Amino acid sequence: MSKQRLKSRRQFLQGTALSSVFLGFSLPVKAQSSLTELQQILPESMLKPGANFSNYGQPSIYEKDIIRWISANPNVPGNGVSWTPLEELQGTITPNGLHYERHHNGVPDINPSTHEIMIDGLVDTPLTFSIDALKRYPQTTKICFIECGGNSNAGWRSSPIQSAAGYVHGLVSNAEWTGVPLKLLLNECGVQPRAKWAIAEAADGAALNVSVPIEKLMNYAILALYQNGERLRPENGYPVRLLLPGWEGIVNVKWLRQLTLVEEPAMTRDETAQYTDLLPSGKARQFSFPMQAKSLITSPSVGMTLPDNPGIYQVTGLAWSGNGKISKVDVSADGGKTWVEAELQAPILDKAFTRFSLPWQWQGQYAVLQSRATDETGYQQPTREALITERGDNSFFHYNAIVSWEVNEDGQISHIYL
Amino acid sequence: MSKQRLKSRRQFLQGTALSSVFLGFSLPVKAQSSLTELQQILPESMLKPGANFSNYGQPSIYEKDIIRWISANPNVPGNGVSWTPLEELQGTITPNGLHYERHHNGVPDINPSTHEIMIDGLVDTPLTFSIDALKRYPQTTKICFIECGGNSNAGWRSSPIQSAAGYVHGLVSNAEWTGVPLKLLLNECGVQPRAKWAIAEAADGAALNVSVPIEKLMNYAILALYQNGERLRPENGYPVRLLLPGWEGIVNVKWLRQLTLVEEPAMTRDETAQYTDLLPSGKARQFSFPMQAKSLITSPSVGMTLPDNPGIYQVTGLAWSGNGKISKVDVSADGGKTWVEAELQAPILDKAFTRFSLPWQWQGQYAVLQSRATDETGYQQPTREALITERGDNSFFHYNAIVSWEVNEDGQISHIYL
Repeated sequence: MSKQRLKSRRQFLQGTALSSVFLGFSLPVKAQSSLTELQQILPESMLKPGANFSNYGQPSIYEKDIIRWISANPNVPGNGVSWTPLEELQGTITPNGLHYERHHNGVPDINPSTHEIMIDGLVDTPLTFSIDALKRYPQTTKICFIECGGNSNAGWRSSPIQSAAGYVHGLVSNAEWTGVPLKLLLNECGVQPRAKWAIAEAADGAALNVSVPIEKLMNYAILALYQNGERLRPENGYPVRLLLPGWEGIVNVKWLRQLTLVEEPAMTRDETAQYTDLLPSGKARQFSFPMQAKSLITSPSVGMTLPDNPGIYQVTGLAWSGNGKISKVDVSADGGKTWVEAELQAPILDKAFTRFSLPWQWQGQYAVLQSRATDETGYQQPTREALITERGDNSFFHYNAIVSWEVNEDGQISHIYL
Repeated sequence: MSKQRLKSRRQFLQGTALSSVFLGFSLPVKAQSSLTELQQILPESMLKPGANFSNYGQPSIYEKDIIRWISANPNVPGNGVSWTPLEELQGTITPNGLHYERHHNGVPDINPSTHEIMIDGLVDTPLTFSIDALKRYPQTTKICFIECGGNSNAGWRSSPIQSAAGYVHGLVSNAEWTGVPLKLLLNECGVQPRAKWAIAEAADGAALNVSVPIEKLMNYAILALYQNGERLRPENGYPVRLLLPGWEGIVNVKWLRQLTLVEEPAMTRDETAQYTDLLPSGKARQFSFPMQAKSLITSPSVGMTLPDNPGIYQVTGLAWSGNGKISKVDVSADGGKTWVEAELQAPILDKAFTRFSLPWQWQGQYAVLQSRATDETGYQQPTREALITERGDNSFFHYNAIVSWEVNEDGQISHIYL
């Protein structure tokens, strides 16, 4: 069964120029063997009954290496992250088993039958809401990403990290969230005019708490109970999380137990010592809630090697913006000298992952692949140089610069800075 | 901690009429206790670190009963179904662990590194494609439902079954599928003009095979490799399935190994002995591929009991059509005498689950809840009576009539025929 795959493509490519060329979508890759080369033997899977039905399905054993990589602080129980393997996924939904994690003190065990959310502070009537009560309210559904403010922070390092794309940029995931519009509960409590912020507290060991402007809570917040159709996963806030579409992960408070309405932000640890950016001026950027437009080529990407058969490759990746819809993604194969607009997969949704793709012809030439997102506000993802000019080099959070993948003549892909 | 929940709602309702009333969406349910009733004690989850990070997440232990129920034939290994618990889910995406199953001979174990798809028959060049080769082709993504042709077939019985909604209607699920447009491969093989059908065969123990018109394959078929972002689940066709959006499940062939292009359908077992409908005329309806528009109220639904606190309930459910987008869902609380248009959750997608909802005021009166879907072709979901008039009572498949949930004065919900 010798497989002379791609022979005809090699022949086809002998007639083409050496420069990288973007081609129309209709041109298929030739990757085949002829039928005459085949042995007509039934595969083993057809010779016996298969496995039984299951009450709750799991991934194939052949995909057991497609996991969240864990980076945890050994000195603090449950402090760290696990990363979504973005370079292994397709489409836009992140399956629940692979949604990224960021915990400050682990995943609490919360019995939904006793958990309550309390809304107090500057309200006319402080109220509590059980999970059963929340389930009776009108539910709304939103497909959106959640991104940790610390995602991609290796980009601030002086030299480019060579970890897989998801291990650097995978603190972002995209899911269909369903829950109760928070304004229904706030209106029921009666928000007093002096209330401008709320302190949101989690029922975890870290007693994580952050301040959120009341305007966002009233107009966009969802008390999420469901994630991709089923109840939230424990590591994503079971039994209830605060969802603030487009805003950095930390304020999408998991295991939510309390919202205290106040006049001023509380200046908690997680909005002062963390998730702020020290600027060249010496002042710190704080409460920079919306995650700015960003994109990433997930395939091909760092650590991959293009097969030894030059030809047409799909360049594909993800773009997202905390300020609205993605309007455009440009792709470059020459490190940003020239750009071609990629195709965006419909439907393009507000504050959600948008998949882009573009066929790319590679025949062994040196190349630097980049993607650049533009959102509907007109904001364009900056170069690394522009981002550092604006923010300096003391930052640790909110890195959204263009990522560069270098392809060498052997098809090996590295992360570089330009 | 006495919880005087809903007292204020009961007072509110004393002034309202006894008939069922639909209300605007902005009216919140009053379900609360006052802060003064609360004990200010930290929950146990805050007194210790939580659980560790995980490589692949699982549902909460408190949701362990949210599973696919299995109905299998004990005399045939791996022949049967497992049902999506629709009445327990929200939003529109079915999480991969709960996607319904229909197998004829179990779930085969297929190594993706050796699996191939062969396209032969009336083509210029028969070709085979490995999974690695397929991954290099342009990918397209489609959010759509797949529904077994036998879904809801208990509706053909002479008396209404009292099983949970998902245990009768849950052979339908909705996911984001990603894979290769089949036309790219067909064009590469060169489809001969005489080819009007293809016989699609699975690599399972049943050697399941069906005939599919070439026109659908050329224009709409996807060789799906990914399901909700990650690689297909084994029970959903790993490593590759044929996706024919909107068409009955059986032709969305899982574990696809071969497409043989032919002039006429092969009249296989699964398109003659099954998935056909014997009509009153004595003739059988065959190759009725698109699943007709359908809807179902998932909550409240059969087997549930409304709590002993009359008031406002969210009536919510799912609608879908194999012929396009859902344009409208009407809801009735009086067994179809009067209808109110429900709100549809955006985005409304072609051949995909559409969530509808409507607040409903119930104060202990007898009611019969129904939903009725209309799709963009103008087709409206029929009453049970109309469906039986058209199809007779010898049918077993393709049941899409309006479902009636009877609510008695105690809030107990039963399935009835009207």
